[in-house]
Amino acid sequence: MQHDRPPATSESPGTSETCGGAVMARLAELARFSADPDGLTRLYLTPAHAAAARQVAAWMEEAGMSVRLDAAATVVGRYEAATPGAPTLLVGSHIDTVRDAGHYDGNLGVVVGIAAVRALHEAGERLPFAVEVLAFGDEEGVRFPMTLTGSRALAGLVRPDFLDARDGDGITLAQALRDFGGDPDALSALARDPASVLGYLEVHIEQGPVLEAADLPVGIVTAISGASRLVVTVEGRAGHAGTVPMPLRRDALAAAAEMVLAVEAEAQAIPDLVATVGRIEVPRGAVNVIPAMTRFSLDLRSPSDAVRHAALARLGATFATISERRGVAVTTESSYDEPAAACAPAFRDALAEGIARLGLRPLSLPSGAGHDGLALAGLCPIGMVFVRCAGGLSHSPAESVAEADVDVAVCLLVDVLRHLRPEALARS
Amino acid sequence: MQHDRPPATSESPGTSETCGGAVMARLAELARFSADPDGLTRLYLTPAHAAAARQVAAWMEEAGMSVRLDAAATVVGRYEAATPGAPTLLVGSHIDTVRDAGHYDGNLGVVVGIAAVRALHEAGERLPFAVEVLAFGDEEGVRFPMTLTGSRALAGLVRPDFLDARDGDGITLAQALRDFGGDPDALSALARDPASVLGYLEVHIEQGPVLEAADLPVGIVTAISGASRLVVTVEGRAGHAGTVPMPLRRDALAAAAEMVLAVEAEAQAIPDLVATVGRIEVPRGAVNVIPAMTRFSLDLRSPSDAVRHAALARLGATFATISERRGVAVTTESSYDEPAAACAPAFRDALAEGIARLGLRPLSLPSGAGHDGLALAGLCPIGMVFVRCAGGLSHSPAESVAEADVDVAVCLLVDVLRHLRPEALARS
Repeated sequence: MQHDRPPATSESPGTSETCGGAVMARLAELARFSADPDGLTRLYLTPAHAAAARQVAAWMEEAGMSVRLDAAATVVGRYEAATPGAPTLLVGSHIDTVRDAGHYDGNLGVVVGIAAVRALHEAGERLPFAVEVLAFGDEEGVRFPMTLTGSRALAGLVRPDFLDARDGDGITLAQALRDFGGDPDALSALARDPASVLGYLEVHIEQGPVLEAADLPVGIVTAISGASRLVVTVEGRAGHAGTVPMPLRRDALAAAAEMVLAVEAEAQAIPDLVATVGRIEVPRGAVNVIPAMTRFSLDLRSPSDAVRHAALARLGATFATISERRGVAVTTESSYDEPAAACAPAFRDALAEGIARLGLRPLSLPSGAGHDGLALAGLCPIGMVFVRCAGGLSHSPAESVAEADVDVAVCLLVDVLRHLRPEALARS
Repeated sequence: MQHDRPPATSESPGTSETCGGAVMARLAELARFSADPDGLTRLYLTPAHAAAARQVAAWMEEAGMSVRLDAAATVVGRYEAATPGAPTLLVGSHIDTVRDAGHYDGNLGVVVGIAAVRALHEAGERLPFAVEVLAFGDEEGVRFPMTLTGSRALAGLVRPDFLDARDGDGITLAQALRDFGGDPDALSALARDPASVLGYLEVHIEQGPVLEAADLPVGIVTAISGASRLVVTVEGRAGHAGTVPMPLRRDALAAAAEMVLAVEAEAQAIPDLVATVGRIEVPRGAVNVIPAMTRFSLDLRSPSDAVRHAALARLGATFATISERRGVAVTTESSYDEPAAACAPAFRDALAEGIARLGLRPLSLPSGAGHDGLALAGLCPIGMVFVRCAGGLSHSPAESVAEADVDVAVCLLVDVLRHLRPEALARS
């Protein structure tokens, strides 16, 4: 079921006195564009996406921007610089969601970006750079087997074979783009000239508990962490649970348990590393059979690729030691390896100064989740602001942010836009 | 498909010079009575069971025994004592199998028992006690939800509600017994007078690797281990694998891994205890989600109930300590608790003397698997001889014993029957 309706005209968000209140009201409005009557599901290039894009476009126009939908279905709202020919600062996030999503993941950054430009527009201010607010449509990667199509296109990173990828109904990305009003043949032409782009700045919910634990509304992202995913298989020897004495066992699960704890200990010992075993199974396991095989997943993330690769190497050696001592075999298979994208020091400094001007403590933290900045780091310096979310919860209808925190995020973004020195970013 | 055929007449096993060879030949013949044309599957009260029972009965008659099928479908072959009114020594094992079984589990003990009596019969020897060779039909417990029906009946331990239990096709045990030629109404009358029974002695494959590791053909069972089975559930807190720092995690799997290793360490530290975690799962686990819950099975066995219960109590305390330190919750649910059945010292001594007379080292070991002796321990002293099996493997077509080892088992049983002093058993 598609909840399409005409975009709100004029002052619909003006029900609250604060910037945060206006943003919260708009996020509630935006959440109504969903494929799901009882929750929020808005996949790339669906009617719900189209409706949300129209609403976002209307808000951008109202905020003084010229608006267009690009060939990758990104809504682009442009607020011109004080002088023609100045470079452009990209600000944005995404308006696609996971299935049964919360209101804030992605949408918050788009609506905050519009609110910041609107504040400049209402004050009649122009900056020494143009600002483009971008509403990407493919960050969650739910519909097609790849993701970040909109941001990859700007960075010139869309491979031609992406267009042949199909969704669960067999529709190709090329066809879906055409049906939406995009243009698959024009994706490569979306690539921006790096010289024309100052950088990309995104506001996003943290999706983790660090800011809540630190009692801070916002934080500065140091990097979007790189990630390694592996499948680890331990092969021992099956046996009767009652008849094989302990010294004669080659228990694949006991060996795997030691590895799980080694993974945890490694991540606890190394700053800037998190590691998770999220899945484990004993294939054909039974209560009265010594496990012959155990398979588990391993997910390692770090803002530093060097830290991540060193940890992987140490864990590989530890797994080998455990296996040798226990007389089992271990094999690891890498299923995913994505390098980290560091945030530019100039953005980090600018955000720290802005946060300090708001009277808050600037806290830096890595982003363990992926974002459009991963792709845009191939084009320009990137920066990210995290906004505290309750319990660190995301990808859930229970996702929640406080209006006061959103207010801080809008104020911070406006402040940073006003103080940002293009030459500092150009040097990064 | 049912491979029924007339029982072999006369000297079919006499193709080998040794007792072991004859037994091996008969085991190969017996393995042809199967529900499965390509393997051995012989469940309680099936046509394959009936055909095997007829063959066993024929061999018993040939060995000088009077034969009957009792109400629980146990084949009973009786070799009378030197004097009327003497007590009876029970010797036997089972002729039902698991699905896709090996040739030796159960069947070996029945055929060895017949071979031993045949040797006495051919030598014209009578003993100061009668010998009954029993071929039980329900040791594996595959068809109905309970097991040991034949041996429980002799011990007076069949509960009336057992008869209402149904197999996978909805047939009750009572009906299956009637269809087979047994008599559900007469089960309770099968209970033997303890004064009339000297004891129960069973030869069985070890189903474990101890004898192979010790390079011995046979061993003396100290006790049929008692067993506890539990399901342990650990509840932590879900979280994003990339965004939750290690100190803020409550990872249910990491806690469970620590428990798995604690289980192993407990069993390694305590003689006469084995402990196994055979199953583990993270319900709805994903590679990028910190496990909110982990569930695992726990199987503890010991020939000493005191050792087993003390280990359970220590593990419970260890699980609580781990849970408290990690901020997770743990619950344990007992799914099974079966006390140990000790083998009588008189049987153990008699077997040790017999093994020594054969020039072999008497090695004692517990039986981690259950056997009909568990039920018969409620009636009389029990004793068991284990025969080495390759790789400790059982419940598999790859189950294998050496002819030379079977030869030792037959010689040992004949020797022990000849030397057994009824008064020693009567005192146990």
